[in-house]
Amino acid sequence: MTMSLRDMTQAECFSVLEESRFGHLACSKDGQPYVVPIYFAYQNGIAYAFSMPGRKIDSMRENDKVCLQAQRWQAGKSWASVVVEGRYQEFPDTEVWRSERLHAWSLLQKHSDWWEIGALKPHELPVAAKSPHVFYGILLREVTGRTAAAVE
Amino acid sequence: MTMSLRDMTQAECFSVLEESRFGHLACSKDGQPYVVPIYFAYQNGIAYAFSMPGRKIDSMRENDKVCLQAQRWQAGKSWASVVVEGRYQEFPDTEVWRSERLHAWSLLQKHSDWWEIGALKPHELPVAAKSPHVFYGILLREVTGRTAAAVE
Repeated sequence: MTMSLRDMTQAECFSVLEESRFGHLACSKDGQPYVVPIYFAYQNGIAYAFSMPGRKIDSMRENDKVCLQAQRWQAGKSWASVVVEGRYQEFPDTEVWRSERLHAWSLLQKHSDWWEIGALKPHELPVAAKSPHVFYGILLREVTGRTAAAVE
Repeated sequence: MTMSLRDMTQAECFSVLEESRFGHLACSKDGQPYVVPIYFAYQNGIAYAFSMPGRKIDSMRENDKVCLQAQRWQAGKSWASVVVEGRYQEFPDTEVWRSERLHAWSLLQKHSDWWEIGALKPHELPVAAKSPHVFYGILLREVTGRTAAAVE
């Protein structure tokens, strides 16, 4: 078996992002990249996510250029991989950002496994004012994708 | 269900790397990170891989600081995630690097799906002199890991 590779259209890329719940987020500080798995929900040019404070958040606050990769495994050995370059935008718990924060939460809570990485209990609503969780969005600037299909 | 998170020991991290064949590699150029999935084989402090020339290789040639993340899904909803910071080292097809190049090849060819991303046919041995493929290693500088287990 060998694989046939091709670039994806923009519409195909958005389709993968909309279906994805899990991806890999890379940030970079002083030229040192750092990549971790995240859960996210994508809608209208923004990948919404939240995280406990830590190295990833520190890095993105200092350098807001980030990269998000998501993958779809298809029938057989086929796959589609989408890479987003974007900008980190935090949604702090203030009036200005309240609607974005609530919107992020409403998208993310639809998925039953959203708390697995954050180690939250389901009743600990991280949107609450005293939550230590950082809500943020990756604002899409550019998206590319490649897909591979098995050929005989 | 909630999850209990803890840091992994170095030995646990190496164990995940040795068992992994698939991961996510991040590089960074001019402060813009870039992350893509790769196949690799880890042994004694080096993650071996190969790739067609392209953006990833161009970026790592310019800035050799890279990050590799690998994940193991365990029983139930448990997982272990390992993050390697390291240095990109190319293994060009020259006398000096021949043994590293052959070693990389011998490790990588053990796995039947190594050619899926590279879109190679199995008989196209990329170790050959005229191959356009770039062999490289990620030389481990630091490794950390976190693991999550479901608790009632």
